[in-house]
Amino acid sequence: MSATPDGYLGAEGRITSGPAPEMVAAGYAREVADAPLLHRGLGLADLAHVIALHKAGVVPEQAAARLAAELLTILDIPAAEFPYDPVYGDAYNSREHELERRLGPTAGWLHTGRTRREAGRIAFRLALRDRLLGLHEVVERFVGALARQALAHANTVWADNTYLQPAQPSTFGHYLGGFGEEAIRHLDRVETAFTLADRSPAGVGGVGGPRVPLDRDHLAELLGFAEVGAHTRDIMWSVDSFTDAVLAAVMAATTADRLAEDLEIFTSPGFGYVTVHPSLCRASVLMPQKRNPYALAVIRSGANTLIGRATGLLATGRTPSARTDNWLHTYREVTEAVEQSRQLVALAAETVRTVQVDRQAMARVAGAHFTGAADLAEELVLRCGLDYRTAYRAVGRAVARAIAVGRTTITADDLNRAAEEIAGKPLEVGEDLVRDALDPSRIVSTRTVPGGSAPDRVREHARRLRERTQAAEQWRERQRDRIGETEQRLLAAARVVASRNNGQPLPS
Amino acid sequence: MSATPDGYLGAEGRITSGPAPEMVAAGYAREVADAPLLHRGLGLADLAHVIALHKAGVVPEQAAARLAAELLTILDIPAAEFPYDPVYGDAYNSREHELERRLGPTAGWLHTGRTRREAGRIAFRLALRDRLLGLHEVVERFVGALARQALAHANTVWADNTYLQPAQPSTFGHYLGGFGEEAIRHLDRVETAFTLADRSPAGVGGVGGPRVPLDRDHLAELLGFAEVGAHTRDIMWSVDSFTDAVLAAVMAATTADRLAEDLEIFTSPGFGYVTVHPSLCRASVLMPQKRNPYALAVIRSGANTLIGRATGLLATGRTPSARTDNWLHTYREVTEAVEQSRQLVALAAETVRTVQVDRQAMARVAGAHFTGAADLAEELVLRCGLDYRTAYRAVGRAVARAIAVGRTTITADDLNRAAEEIAGKPLEVGEDLVRDALDPSRIVSTRTVPGGSAPDRVREHARRLRERTQAAEQWRERQRDRIGETEQRLLAAARVVASRNNGQPLPS
Amino acid sequence: MSATPDGYLGAEGRITSGPAPEMVAAGYAREVADAPLLHRGLGLADLAHVIALHKAGVVPEQAAARLAAELLTILDIPAAEFPYDPVYGDAYNSREHELERRLGPTAGWLHTGRTRREAGRIAFRLALRDRLLGLHEVVERFVGALARQALAHANTVWADNTYLQPAQPSTFGHYLGGFGEEAIRHLDRVETAFTLADRSPAGVGGVGGPRVPLDRDHLAELLGFAEVGAHTRDIMWSVDSFTDAVLAAVMAATTADRLAEDLEIFTSPGFGYVTVHPSLCRASVLMPQKRNPYALAVIRSGANTLIGRATGLLATGRTPSARTDNWLHTYREVTEAVEQSRQLVALAAETVRTVQVDRQAMARVAGAHFTGAADLAEELVLRCGLDYRTAYRAVGRAVARAIAVGRTTITADDLNRAAEEIAGKPLEVGEDLVRDALDPSRIVSTRTVPGGSAPDRVREHARRLRERTQAAEQWRERQRDRIGETEQRLLAAARVVASRNNGQPLPS
Amino acid sequence: MSATPDGYLGAEGRITSGPAPEMVAAGYAREVADAPLLHRGLGLADLAHVIALHKAGVVPEQAAARLAAELLTILDIPAAEFPYDPVYGDAYNSREHELERRLGPTAGWLHTGRTRREAGRIAFRLALRDRLLGLHEVVERFVGALARQALAHANTVWADNTYLQPAQPSTFGHYLGGFGEEAIRHLDRVETAFTLADRSPAGVGGVGGPRVPLDRDHLAELLGFAEVGAHTRDIMWSVDSFTDAVLAAVMAATTADRLAEDLEIFTSPGFGYVTVHPSLCRASVLMPQKRNPYALAVIRSGANTLIGRATGLLATGRTPSARTDNWLHTYREVTEAVEQSRQLVALAAETVRTVQVDRQAMARVAGAHFTGAADLAEELVLRCGLDYRTAYRAVGRAVARAIAVGRTTITADDLNRAAEEIAGKPLEVGEDLVRDALDPSRIVSTRTVPGGSAPDRVREHARRLRERTQAAEQWRERQRDRIGETEQRLLAAARVVASRNNGQPLPS
Repeated sequence: MSATPDGYLGAEGRITSGPAPEMVAAGYAREVADAPLLHRGLGLADLAHVIALHKAGVVPEQAAARLAAELLTILDIPAAEFPYDPVYGDAYNSREHELERRLGPTAGWLHTGRTRREAGRIAFRLALRDRLLGLHEVVERFVGALARQALAHANTVWADNTYLQPAQPSTFGHYLGGFGEEAIRHLDRVETAFTLADRSPAGVGGVGGPRVPLDRDHLAELLGFAEVGAHTRDIMWSVDSFTDAVLAAVMAATTADRLAEDLEIFTSPGFGYVTVHPSLCRASVLMPQKRNPYALAVIRSGANTLIGRATGLLATGRTPSARTDNWLHTYREVTEAVEQSRQLVALAAETVRTVQVDRQAMARVAGAHFTGAADLAEELVLRCGLDYRTAYRAVGRAVARAIAVGRTTITADDLNRAAEEIAGKPLEVGEDLVRDALDPSRIVSTRTVPGGSAPDRVREHARRLRERTQAAEQWRERQRDRIGETEQRLLAAARVVASRNNGQPLPS
Repeated sequence: MSATPDGYLGAEGRITSGPAPEMVAAGYAREVADAPLLHRGLGLADLAHVIALHKAGVVPEQAAARLAAELLTILDIPAAEFPYDPVYGDAYNSREHELERRLGPTAGWLHTGRTRREAGRIAFRLALRDRLLGLHEVVERFVGALARQALAHANTVWADNTYLQPAQPSTFGHYLGGFGEEAIRHLDRVETAFTLADRSPAGVGGVGGPRVPLDRDHLAELLGFAEVGAHTRDIMWSVDSFTDAVLAAVMAATTADRLAEDLEIFTSPGFGYVTVHPSLCRASVLMPQKRNPYALAVIRSGANTLIGRATGLLATGRTPSARTDNWLHTYREVTEAVEQSRQLVALAAETVRTVQVDRQAMARVAGAHFTGAADLAEELVLRCGLDYRTAYRAVGRAVARAIAVGRTTITADDLNRAAEEIAGKPLEVGEDLVRDALDPSRIVSTRTVPGGSAPDRVREHARRLRERTQAAEQWRERQRDRIGETEQRLLAAARVVASRNNGQPLPS
Repeated sequence: MSATPDGYLGAEGRITSGPAPEMVAAGYAREVADAPLLHRGLGLADLAHVIALHKAGVVPEQAAARLAAELLTILDIPAAEFPYDPVYGDAYNSREHELERRLGPTAGWLHTGRTRREAGRIAFRLALRDRLLGLHEVVERFVGALARQALAHANTVWADNTYLQPAQPSTFGHYLGGFGEEAIRHLDRVETAFTLADRSPAGVGGVGGPRVPLDRDHLAELLGFAEVGAHTRDIMWSVDSFTDAVLAAVMAATTADRLAEDLEIFTSPGFGYVTVHPSLCRASVLMPQKRNPYALAVIRSGANTLIGRATGLLATGRTPSARTDNWLHTYREVTEAVEQSRQLVALAAETVRTVQVDRQAMARVAGAHFTGAADLAEELVLRCGLDYRTAYRAVGRAVARAIAVGRTTITADDLNRAAEEIAGKPLEVGEDLVRDALDPSRIVSTRTVPGGSAPDRVREHARRLRERTQAAEQWRERQRDRIGETEQRLLAAARVVASRNNGQPLPS
Repeated sequence: MSATPDGYLGAEGRITSGPAPEMVAAGYAREVADAPLLHRGLGLADLAHVIALHKAGVVPEQAAARLAAELLTILDIPAAEFPYDPVYGDAYNSREHELERRLGPTAGWLHTGRTRREAGRIAFRLALRDRLLGLHEVVERFVGALARQALAHANTVWADNTYLQPAQPSTFGHYLGGFGEEAIRHLDRVETAFTLADRSPAGVGGVGGPRVPLDRDHLAELLGFAEVGAHTRDIMWSVDSFTDAVLAAVMAATTADRLAEDLEIFTSPGFGYVTVHPSLCRASVLMPQKRNPYALAVIRSGANTLIGRATGLLATGRTPSARTDNWLHTYREVTEAVEQSRQLVALAAETVRTVQVDRQAMARVAGAHFTGAADLAEELVLRCGLDYRTAYRAVGRAVARAIAVGRTTITADDLNRAAEEIAGKPLEVGEDLVRDALDPSRIVSTRTVPGGSAPDRVREHARRLRERTQAAEQWRERQRDRIGETEQRLLAAARVVASRNNGQPLPS
């Protein structure tokens, strides 16, 4: 009741003081800053509560009608224009104050059987669901962009690498598809987080249930929650479900981050594999020749920052029972993390969509650095009956010698000589075998295991990504439709209650 | 090839140096410390690889037989007795070295078409699956203990609280059930993490697939993975799936932590609600009268530490593509976090199982501190037609006055007088209404919404918990059976290959 | 040069596109959100740069005068009224754009020898210094409040506890003084962080130093930095110094948090040791009897969140060389963390200042629970020649028996009997010894080691705290005076340059 | 008293149970795992306590002598051979048990006036001091290696970069020196952390001071602490000082990490700037041509992991007053983090010491990519009176045109034409000006501000680094000498006490 003049009662009910300015600054002001986030959800929660109280016969018809009518009116006031003021406490307190100003004692009916907390929790869950759908949409877009580029570069040969050292020939489409595979797990995670957010905390009273006969199923239906929280204390106080949301967000951003780090290296002049689109670069104020791939730094910077957000939530998650430490910042921290991830993944999707690939540059590296050495050794295994370690040593020695004299490839002679030294017998392989074994395109064409880098396999995998994006889109549309329809039904029900108002004009 | 004498090749294939001692200490020694974790899994991975190479016709029958026979032999050497040595590199390198010592060049066939990495990844996933089942088991035990105590205290009345201030009468069984509800989400999380771990990285060659014709489906089947990783680069390098495992572990520990913090307060003399079992307490070396609930501090301390483990993994998760930073510590960090969580949750389960509850102490507090005030106000709403805010103010004023004169309850008179002052009209409620409205047991009996604190609802919810634990147990047994049977089949298949060894004696 | 129409140049210098909306949202918009933080500092940095360019003879007198005059004019435009717009890039870009709008080509001189980055870094360091002084002030206030309360409760006897179990009699002033001792380390940390922030990044050109002859010492002096950064690349790019600032902030908040957690327990009805001032509490919307110590939850919630902020910075701290990931969010993350900590510590200081202590409640607990048991055992050591473990067991047995029969104290008889059983010989201690040994006030009076809980020692320690706060205040005033005087000198110097403007009117 | 047979007392002093196995596993076993860390320190702490008790006249001469003699004996038992056993509790409990086994009741004197905690805290601080000196030594070595290489490459011209895009010519020595400058801040941090660890927690009794007359100053002197903790409760329970140690460790590792990331890019074939020494590389098991810079991944991986360690400590740092959550893992987490950082920084120092630099490769890039563009624009400012933005645009247009037609440099003609288009008037610069302005070596020679990249400045800065390492070495030697001498004095004093043992043989 801090929002009302008798908020700080001493004996005899007199005001002894207002809230300390230090508490307003560190507490209420930060809570009220959540008002834009919660604004609409608080309005919907209030409407559902009035309908439920009315249905339960707890509130007189007239009062219910006036409340419903006024709540419908203020629902359409933009958050920025609503008189939110930290001196009253959190957003709910300001709404209480404003309703009392508008309706007088009739406003008092609204607080029957419900805590401030419950209204906030409902609004937060509605807002989070919405943000999660937004994140889901861009992750899908990211997967889609990767699938398209993977298709486009299903036979763009490059040297895959480890430790940034060229390893074996592969296809750039295969490289990109790997990020897509990782990202479809993020779709799963976001969908799980959505399901957890989509549970109703309405109608829990103080915490063990209300004394007044509220119908939790009906409230959940009015608010469009898929389920009723199965335990009143748990649904009101637990935060672990939101950790899932934030972690889905952090992990999605991390995938974008890792790709961004690779691309920054690949777009450096040393590599020259790709060009980031100019609309994602930034000029230097001092150096006229420079074009900096700023988007990539933005993605990485954001992903790093999000790790801290997740950690902060894990730390606050340790709040003991019913103590609110965990909730005071949760509304904003969780939704902002999801929103920031959405921005980062959207930026990554745009980066992938527009990136230009230099096939020649990639082919040049793939054909150098002895990237076919392991394939050559495997050929010796398959054709000459050498065990792999012996074959490996023979090829290794031939390569080392070639490097030592500044050559960039090896000959059958090199190999035969090295093998003789290592294995004690000549190999007698011909130039054809060596040349074919080392040929990047031929190498790639042998990678035909499921999920491999052969062009057909890359295309097959890209189709898998596409199918997942289609399923994602359908899932998301179902949720959005359901949410939209529910809200319309809630507003219609509220208008019915409001219409009992004995001929008073109704809000449109 | 750091494990072999020519590990550090210069031109002409000569040794130029061994590994720097600083690198052995900071790198190899830490990798080799994972050997006990990976030991058996590496053995199984090697066996499966030999079987697959043999089936593909890549390895001569005789060599395959000798390899299989020797691998079966060393499978039974305990990790502590195996000659693991960081000077060779990681655990795989020591195994390679030992196999070469035992078999000579025949050992070299094993490395065909497979990286050291692949063997490690397989072993790690097998170990992680195992650890996750261990965690799953104790989480189930924790839920079970909570369900039993919730049933036992379905009608133990206490004052639920927020900010540690008594709020409203509730049941202690309801309080406990809330932790159970939270914990069943951890069962879901652990099962998801298991599913993600249960994907096969076998048969991916350098990273885009092997040149030699290995059958990824067959390898997965031999190793008992439920699925083949859908993309070779992703299944080899991505770590996000293990973050799910660690987060499930951290969140499970966090639930235990929160309960532990509550219980430490509840077992303090100021509260005296519960007694922690002596076997979970620790004496003071200095103070003979003290019994410290040490188990609770252990739980909380571990949970805090685990937050750091999760953060470390999120940070390493940002490693760019194919760079191994993310993997060097992953094997141990992930499995140890899961194992530490297992220990903590087991301790929490034991704490719940053995805790003694002082019903009288709880009842005393529930009947004091005006915990029925909101119920009284709601009665005024239901019976006297007051709006809630007015009723709240009337009760509030009556309470404030009673406190001011040192009384611990209020009378109908108090209330009527306060209401008249607040609302401008007398209420005329009788003593019966006030007494009944304030009675904790009656209050609790009104909390009959689904998931509420009325005894029947608490029992109903405990049954829900029980059902979940039964489903959990069945799921876990299925996994364990499958894993056990697969391993038997793999060993049998290996023995068949080994038996082609031209009459040489076979390992039993 | 993204702020200018030719920001995105293709061949032939034509515009090819503007920045992608995704990049504006995720990048520029977040950077421009720092404008209020950097606004004044950017203005001062520009003025100092113009003065330095002018002194170096690089900019023609007339241009320097016009620039100085215009910069003085816009310095006084509030940030909220300045045309900051993310479409141009960061805050600097908007300023560049606005200056060009006002001055035409003359504005172009400003960019000589300086990156956008340098201006931002200077502004950030100035802002951070300011925030750190703010934090320093409230930490000092916190220490001061603790010192005052420690003095007031130097002889308020209570039972110190571990695991929330009563341990030994002590003084509440001693308890409070311990937090003061911890907090003076935060004063040290904030001062160190200030010193690190107080180094000049001005005059570093692209990064290795400017081509134009700028004087770094003069620039540092104009901007009021205590030192010149000793290495141009380091001072421009390193972020470790700001981690110190954030960690000082987090640790200061953590001390407040720990006290807040204790106080929430101590103010619960179970303990009843202290009352949090009403202006720091919050009423329940539902429960009229409740007063929740909201300030304490605010402190803890904020401290938890700050842990995440620190982690985020540690994670971004890993950005490789000259890549900006670490800097994109640093300005805001660092200063907001310091500011949030300031709010939390201020709230804690107010809580300590106004807290009411119930000496009787504390005395009651101190006299119960056998808190003198260890003292009694030590008396047996000192007077009866028992070794401590034997004495401990004797007292322990006597205590255990008393508890078993529901007694709350022990007699000489109890003790003599127990000792005989344990040590095999009677003790013959008298009632006086037992009573005196168990007396809380006498116990406390024996704790006379330096830093101990005897009242005189508590007062002595409180004086130590006071002395540190006085030194802190003087240090802070010196910094503030220096900063204020420097800025006046800079503005005066700028006015001199502006006055060369051939009779044009000058800004006042 | 869990270490003794009557550890779990019920009424009448009978054993009711031993510790639960879950608690032994999750708690005691983890505590006992710290025994090797604490072993010697516990021995020293016990010796100092006996000397102090003896001096205070609390312990009979004979008992003191026997205790001192036995403690001297067990001091030399290696930790691995000492009968530490988690069933008794932590390491202290095992020692208590062993002493009682050896000495019978005489062992009981040792526990007078001291908690188990105190002994552990002393041992931990001694161990931490030692670890911090180890870290300090390798940070110094790292700075030294950087200084030497900075000197060696004071005039190795390279293109410094941002976003991995070539920016301006600079010197590679300047680049390396920047890491050195960062690292000398770590020396400061480690020294501060050492100072905080170097405070004595001895002689604090239960927590407010002992009843028996122990001399805290004398104890501190015996144990070689530089200071007595100024408040008994604070010195016993606060952990913030150790956070400083861990953060120093994390930040030092982070600097190594950032350098390692740069070097991995610089040693990739795309850049080819440096070669990591073979002893710091690792071969591929599959690919014979590959040499992976494994040391760099080890450094980065460890640094990431350490971020989690720091976070875990920040999270546990929030433990409320006197609750031990924060301490249960602190001993190991803190010292291991410091030790891991020591290993990583040692590896980085070795990497720097042995790295080979390809001056030609660097020079090639420095002379390409129009890295002199900003210098050319600045020349136009200095020589032609253009404002910088106009000059920048003119150069930018000339560069863009050159790129468009595939040229890698620009001519005076290009520039004059572009300037005329941009500024509306011809420039008439000559080829000499353009060529000189773009010459990397000339450019570098102009960077003569303090801390700049001109060779002389780089050498000057390297001398600064050297001076700091010399001061560091002297500081560290002073600490080590003091610690060594103190321990000798403590052992001598213990022998004196032991010699009072009436002719019994003394330990040598």
